Amino acid sequence: MSSMRIMISRAAASRVLSSVGKLPEEVERAVLLSRSTFGNIRTMASKAITIENINPNILKLEYAVRGPLVIRAAEIEKELEKGAKKPFKRVIKANIGDAHAMGQVPITFIRQVLACVSYPELIDKGDFPADVKQRARDILGACGGGSVGSYSASHGIELVRRHAADYIARRDGHPARWQDVCLSSGASTAIKNCLQLLCNDVGGKKSGVMIPIPQYPLYSASLAEYGLEQVGYYLDEKTNWGLSTEELERSLKEAQKHCNVRALVVINPGNPTGQVLTRENIEAVLRFAREHRLFVFADEVYQDNVYADGSQFFSFKKVLRELGPEFGELELASFMSVSKGYMGECGLRGGWVELVGMEPDVQANLYKCVSAMLCPTVLGQTAVDCVAKPPAKGEPSYDLWIKEKTAVLDSLKERAKMIVETFNQMQGFKCNIVQGAMYAFPSISLPPRAVDAARAARQAPDVFYAFRLLEETGICVVPGTGFGQYPGTYHFRTTILPQPALLKEMLDIFKAFHEKFTKEYS
Amino acid sequence: MSSMRIMISRAAASRVLSSVGKLPEEVERAVLLSRSTFGNIRTMASKAITIENINPNILKLEYAVRGPLVIRAAEIEKELEKGAKKPFKRVIKANIGDAHAMGQVPITFIRQVLACVSYPELIDKGDFPADVKQRARDILGACGGGSVGSYSASHGIELVRRHAADYIARRDGHPARWQDVCLSSGASTAIKNCLQLLCNDVGGKKSGVMIPIPQYPLYSASLAEYGLEQVGYYLDEKTNWGLSTEELERSLKEAQKHCNVRALVVINPGNPTGQVLTRENIEAVLRFAREHRLFVFADEVYQDNVYADGSQFFSFKKVLRELGPEFGELELASFMSVSKGYMGECGLRGGWVELVGMEPDVQANLYKCVSAMLCPTVLGQTAVDCVAKPPAKGEPSYDLWIKEKTAVLDSLKERAKMIVETFNQMQGFKCNIVQGAMYAFPSISLPPRAVDAARAARQAPDVFYAFRLLEETGICVVPGTGFGQYPGTYHFRTTILPQPALLKEMLDIFKAFHEKFTKEYS
Repeated sequence: MSSMRIMISRAAASRVLSSVGKLPEEVERAVLLSRSTFGNIRTMASKAITIENINPNILKLEYAVRGPLVIRAAEIEKELEKGAKKPFKRVIKANIGDAHAMGQVPITFIRQVLACVSYPELIDKGDFPADVKQRARDILGACGGGSVGSYSASHGIELVRRHAADYIARRDGHPARWQDVCLSSGASTAIKNCLQLLCNDVGGKKSGVMIPIPQYPLYSASLAEYGLEQVGYYLDEKTNWGLSTEELERSLKEAQKHCNVRALVVINPGNPTGQVLTRENIEAVLRFAREHRLFVFADEVYQDNVYADGSQFFSFKKVLRELGPEFGELELASFMSVSKGYMGECGLRGGWVELVGMEPDVQANLYKCVSAMLCPTVLGQTAVDCVAKPPAKGEPSYDLWIKEKTAVLDSLKERAKMIVETFNQMQGFKCNIVQGAMYAFPSISLPPRAVDAARAARQAPDVFYAFRLLEETGICVVPGTGFGQYPGTYHFRTTILPQPALLKEMLDIFKAFHEKFTKEYS
Repeated sequence: MSSMRIMISRAAASRVLSSVGKLPEEVERAVLLSRSTFGNIRTMASKAITIENINPNILKLEYAVRGPLVIRAAEIEKELEKGAKKPFKRVIKANIGDAHAMGQVPITFIRQVLACVSYPELIDKGDFPADVKQRARDILGACGGGSVGSYSASHGIELVRRHAADYIARRDGHPARWQDVCLSSGASTAIKNCLQLLCNDVGGKKSGVMIPIPQYPLYSASLAEYGLEQVGYYLDEKTNWGLSTEELERSLKEAQKHCNVRALVVINPGNPTGQVLTRENIEAVLRFAREHRLFVFADEVYQDNVYADGSQFFSFKKVLRELGPEFGELELASFMSVSKGYMGECGLRGGWVELVGMEPDVQANLYKCVSAMLCPTVLGQTAVDCVAKPPAKGEPSYDLWIKEKTAVLDSLKERAKMIVETFNQMQGFKCNIVQGAMYAFPSISLPPRAVDAARAARQAPDVFYAFRLLEETGICVVPGTGFGQYPGTYHFRTTILPQPALLKEMLDIFKAFHEKFTKEYS
């Protein structure tokens, strides 16, 4: 099979490898190695895994948030470190929702508890508030041998699952069963585990999963990885990324010609689009899902990130429960994470899924599958516990916790406003209000000559624009292509995470670049 | 499709659910729900995911280390808590390699560094050794925004990858490239990511993966999950679980009739079998792999756990490098974890894979796939860093580190010896020397009447034995069926992890049980 390999040029090889996430020195090595082996088919044939016989789904998988542009940004950072002269001093990474990396300060309570459970001597010796010490004792008491170094149950520590269920019940005003909360190392793992249940070509047709366009690329990547059919439904940019049932029906009908549509993903608050669904909208989605017997994936990791006046977060579970008993059969998985919200603890990898209405034997199989992976990180679970059960009023850590939480959310609200206002002052930009989440996703109109130049460079026009932006200003955003967009429109996603002064600087630089770019191609 | 569902009895449903990992109350609810829906096919049909249309690979997947017996053990613990009267006071969990849960004390250096990176105020304020503080500063300096709450690169923090590569180079006396070390949340994730590359039915035949029998059930579970063909090769119990090339050849030849055998898994030191491969044996395996162009999975997570006089750990990478340049093309993935060794930090989820000889574009695709999962836990990576670069001689933490490490390994050595000696004194037991790892896997001869009783109970004889052991003594081991065993032989796996006094108690109870059991069925 390896003998079918076609020789490609060094430049082409370099392009291919860049596009799949290699660092420059690794690309260099890859090219050298490939060249040395091209002359010797026997040598090539001696590899057990080649591009020809690798899992084809892995080849298809793409994840733009860490794609070629971001790899180039890392290269530029290294070049700057080595003293390269550029028209800018630093790379501004507005590509990924990584709050602490952009200067957001951790919540003290979470970190003090983490320190205490990691090194329990601090509980007695350290100068920590009583509620921190008590929390650490509670968590250690729920760990085998009183150590966070023990495996927990695969679906998480019972105490933490109970706290997460209490949090959900408080949030929604409806009971939540702790047995239906499954902890995970970040929401992504939980999402993938649930998607994987759908892999079954019933009647010779693939299972299809409806996802919004634009979407968060974990979904497109995971669908590709699992060989599931991606069924896109467009969000309507003109109505602030509205989700209409007409569009859901259109998309479903179209897809049913070639696949079994079995699930529907909704991201609320929206990533990359920043809208917050109204209650009526959620009701309509649930009616649609019930009518067509779709499993609902409610990606609600930004539930704390709501900024716009008049916007409010309603969980799908709450709306489901209030729609009436005939909705009791509907299956829903709601995902939560400690990486977003006011805590922004991405690196800790803590999250959960609440499973609602899932068939018990299906749920048992999901839990069995999870068990082979042993357990989610216990320190990540500790962070989940702190978020699910934050300090209560009257407890020593409460005031600081509320102060820190409010400061983060107020600042994000301010930045969400600032970014939208600035973009809308820029010619050719149109940016919907950022009601929630952590991103703006403006549309940009590009001069026809820029579109031609992009084509000549064999790049999508928005990718071309984003690369130029990066090379000339050091600002790293993700082109709309990575999320999906209505044909003929161009966008990019930027986070609202740079701290206010840096964000202002970024927006000024951006403005100047865009004027220059537009002038150049007009 | 749901209408094809077949009604099953409450008892059968309960059995099925127990076998897939449900807690008793969840089983109860499942049975009740199932019964209420059996009468109403319309209701059943309203579910999007059912046992009939779920991913069939998930149904097949089994993971004995957390299987039905372990679930029953957890039930018994809860019953004891509620005051139930049993012929024993506590459950002894000898089913899983969970060192801290069995009383092993964490390594101070690791935990102090974890506390400092979690709550950096401790670096200046806390009373920690200078090298702890410096390590914490180094790690934070390598984190975005100086916070472990930031995402790291998907394949891990460069600094930690460099330290891991240095560790490997020191261990083997051969260079290791940090770019070929990919960090992960525990070794299991890394193993699964590499296995997944093989999913490709080239020429209409499934890819096959050779695994030892007995094996660690992560392999059988993952092969089932990915739809890969399990190709078992027997380890020879008579020669201390020897790995012979004749058996490898037999197994390969047999499997090639129906699948493309593309990879070979070796676990060294062995799990569940405890053998440590000789250098000559590793050479033979590598020759076999090269001849048949197999990708080698070297599961070397127990590399620090070698106890027997005359036994020594050789990494596959070292032997590969020393076999000569013609072996340079061979592909090898070597897995390491902080969950085992002397640290036993299972709950932190830290591990790595070193990729050797992998095609650069295949490696790029693996890294791309990993990137969609964002990053391994940064606190897990911190633990990896401490293990890869422990305190050096002369540094303030060195003496304590070496003392703690030695104490753990010496005690494990003593327990490995104690368990084998005791088992071999028991009639009908035969236990190979535990040269390494954390388990004993004795064979037991069961009286024919016990085998009949097991059959009547529709259980494998070793499962029947292990359930009786659990119910009568509270000792939880894993039956040989979960790992695979030569037909007609019966085994179980026990860890050597209970602390010496408890282990002695356990062995005494075990002995009394076995005598009683044998008498009962003779």
